[in-house]
Amino acid sequence: MHVTDLIRKKRDGRELQRAEIEFLVDGYTRGRIPDYQMAAFLMAVVLRLMTRAELAALTESMLNSGKIMDFSSLPAAKVDKHSTGGVGDKTSLVLAPLVAAGGVYVPMISGRGLGHTGGTLDKLESIPGFNVNLSTTEFRRVLAECGTAMIGQTPEIAPADKKLYALRDVTGTVERPYLICASIMSKKIAEGIDALVLDVKTGSGAFMKSQEDAVFLAELMVETGQRLGKRIAALITDMSQPLGHAVGNALEVAECLEILDGKGPHDLRELCLTLAAWMFLLGHRVKTVDEGRSLAQELIANGQAKEKFRQLIRLQGGNVKVVDDISILPKAKQHMELASADSGYVTAIMCEQIGTASVLLGGGRERKEDNVDPAVGIIVHK
Amino acid sequence: MHVTDLIRKKRDGRELQRAEIEFLVDGYTRGRIPDYQMAAFLMAVVLRLMTRAELAALTESMLNSGKIMDFSSLPAAKVDKHSTGGVGDKTSLVLAPLVAAGGVYVPMISGRGLGHTGGTLDKLESIPGFNVNLSTTEFRRVLAECGTAMIGQTPEIAPADKKLYALRDVTGTVERPYLICASIMSKKIAEGIDALVLDVKTGSGAFMKSQEDAVFLAELMVETGQRLGKRIAALITDMSQPLGHAVGNALEVAECLEILDGKGPHDLRELCLTLAAWMFLLGHRVKTVDEGRSLAQELIANGQAKEKFRQLIRLQGGNVKVVDDISILPKAKQHMELASADSGYVTAIMCEQIGTASVLLGGGRERKEDNVDPAVGIIVHK
Repeated sequence: MHVTDLIRKKRDGRELQRAEIEFLVDGYTRGRIPDYQMAAFLMAVVLRLMTRAELAALTESMLNSGKIMDFSSLPAAKVDKHSTGGVGDKTSLVLAPLVAAGGVYVPMISGRGLGHTGGTLDKLESIPGFNVNLSTTEFRRVLAECGTAMIGQTPEIAPADKKLYALRDVTGTVERPYLICASIMSKKIAEGIDALVLDVKTGSGAFMKSQEDAVFLAELMVETGQRLGKRIAALITDMSQPLGHAVGNALEVAECLEILDGKGPHDLRELCLTLAAWMFLLGHRVKTVDEGRSLAQELIANGQAKEKFRQLIRLQGGNVKVVDDISILPKAKQHMELASADSGYVTAIMCEQIGTASVLLGGGRERKEDNVDPAVGIIVHK
Repeated sequence: MHVTDLIRKKRDGRELQRAEIEFLVDGYTRGRIPDYQMAAFLMAVVLRLMTRAELAALTESMLNSGKIMDFSSLPAAKVDKHSTGGVGDKTSLVLAPLVAAGGVYVPMISGRGLGHTGGTLDKLESIPGFNVNLSTTEFRRVLAECGTAMIGQTPEIAPADKKLYALRDVTGTVERPYLICASIMSKKIAEGIDALVLDVKTGSGAFMKSQEDAVFLAELMVETGQRLGKRIAALITDMSQPLGHAVGNALEVAECLEILDGKGPHDLRELCLTLAAWMFLLGHRVKTVDEGRSLAQELIANGQAKEKFRQLIRLQGGNVKVVDDISILPKAKQHMELASADSGYVTAIMCEQIGTASVLLGGGRERKEDNVDPAVGIIVHK
C-alpha cells in the first residue's frame, strides 16, 4: 500500500477499505507516516467526508492504537456518558455517583476545560485532595469497589487520537463531525464500556450552534458506536443558556451537591435525571426510561447517590467533608454583583460569552498549559 | 495572520487575499510554515479550487520567491515556449534555434523526462559535450551572443516551486490544474520573458487525456500569465500518437536535425512551424501568424536556423559536427524490428505505452535519480 495512493483515493471521493484506513492510522501512530501526509489526508476527509463504514474503521483503528480496558469480570453493565461540552455543564459529577448508586458501573475518563467550556477534571480538582491521576490499576480498584471512578486521559488510551488531535489543531481540521466522532468514540470505547449515553449540546453556548449539526453529529456517533458493538443513545439538549446557575469549578461542585441533596436548579436536575434514566436503561438495570427516572429520583431522595459521591471522594483522596460543608471549597476573595440597568425579562443569554468571561477571570484555559483558579466563577441569577 | 485561519478560509471556500497568499508562500519557502500546514492547505486548494485572482497571486508569490532574470537590455523581445509534455515531443530543439535565427530571443530553461514523457535536457545531453548546466552569467552571455540558450532549472529560480513540488509529490496534490499552472508559470516568467507560447497536449500520450481538461488548463495559464503582464498564447495539440517517428533522446536529436534541413516527418514540421509562427507574433517580429509561418519556412530553407543550432551547440560546449553527421550521436548496440502480424491500417496508437516502453528500455526515468541511456529509443514507422 502506498500512502499517496490512499490520499488520492480519498481526494477523489472513493471509499477506502478497512485495511487501508488501519494502515494509515497505524503507520501514523508509529511514526512511519509523516505529519504532512496525514495532514493532506485529514483535509481530504474534511472536504470529501467519509462513509459510515469508513468512519467505523477509522474509529476502530484509533481505538486499537492503544489499550482497551477490560472490565468484563465486573458483575454489571459498564455505562458512561459523554457531553460535547457546554457552559455550566456539570452533569458528570452528579451522574457518576448517582448511576453507580443504582448498580451500574460508570468508568469515567474525562477532559479538562478548553475554550469557553469547562472540564470535569478541573471541577473535581477544586475538591481539596481529589486525585484524578490514577493509574489504570488504581482506576480499576476504585471502580470495582465504588462502582465509579473518575480520571483523566492516560497515555495508553487511543494514542492515535492524541497525535491526530494535535495535528488537526494546527491544520484547520478540528471542527468537523467525522473527525470529532472518531476522536470521541475511540476514547470512550477504550474505557471498556458496554453502553454510552451521548449528551449532544446545541445552541449559543455549544460547539454545534445549530440543531441540524448537532443531530448530524449525534447520528454519526450512534451509528459508529453500534457498528463497534456498543449500545448507544444520544440526547440533543439545549445549551442556549448556562446549565444551572453556576459557572466556575468550585461553584459547580457546590451546585452538584445541591442536586444530590434533592435541591438545586430545575434545568440541571431534569437533565441529570433524564441522562441517568438512559444510562440505567442502556445498562439493562431498568426496562423503560420512566423506570430509570424513578430509580434516579429514589437514589437521590434516600441519600444513596450522595453517599456514593462521598465514597468516591474518599477513594480518590479528596476531603469528604465537602459533601456536608461546601465552605471548605476554594472561595473567591472578590465578589461583585452585576445588575441589569433596566427592569424587564431575559429573552436570550449570550451563553458562550458567559463561559468566556469565566475563562478570562481565570476559571478556564485559553491555552492547554494555562493553570486554572478553582475559586473563580459566575452565578447567573436569572 | 495565523496559518490555521488561512487554511480554514480556503477549506471553507472563501477567497484569500493577495497578502494572505504571499504570507503562506513566503513563510513556507523560508521554513517558518511547516510541511504539514502547507500539505493541508494544498489539499484544500485541490478540492476547493482557486479564483483567478488567487491563482495569479499564488503564481506571483512563487515567482517572487527567487531570482527573476532581467534581459530588458537585450534589443528584441524575449519569448519562450512551454509544452505540457508528450511522447516524441522534441519541438524545443527546433524552435530555440529557429526563432532565434529570426531575431527573437529564446531564453529556455527546461526539465528532464519524468514518467512516460521525455525531457529537453536529456535530449540535448545526447549531443556529445553539450553542457546544460550553465551559470546565470553564462546563460546570459550565450543568450546575448546567440539569441538563444538552453539550460536546466537553477536553484535561484522559484525555490518555492521546488519545495512545493516535492511536497505535492508525496501528498496526492500533483495532477490538478491550479497547482500545475502556478508551478509552470512561475518558473517560465522567472526566465525574464515578455511572452510565452503554450503547447498544451491532449490525448493518450499526454498528462491531460481529455480535450476539456487541456482547454481548462490552457485558459488558466493564459489568464494567469496575462494578469502578470505577459503576452500569452496557448495551442491545444494532439498527443494521441508520438510526435514525429522517433522516441528516445539521440534519435530525437537526429529527427530535429532533419526538420532543420527542411525534411523530417510532416506532423513534427507542421507543429514546429505553427509554434514558431506564434512565437514570432507574440515577439512582435511579425504582424500575423501566416507571416510568422512564412518567416519560419524561409529560415529553414536558407539554412539560417541550422546555422543557429550549430552556433548554440558550439557556445554550450557540444560537438558541432553532429549538425552535419548524425553518426556521432550515441547509437544503440542492439536493434530489433517489430512488424505487425497482420496486414491492415493503424487506427489508434497506445501512445503513453510507447513512451513507457522507451523508459523501460533505459531511455527515460522511473525515478528522478535514474540515469538515462541516450542511445535508447523506438522508431514508429507507421
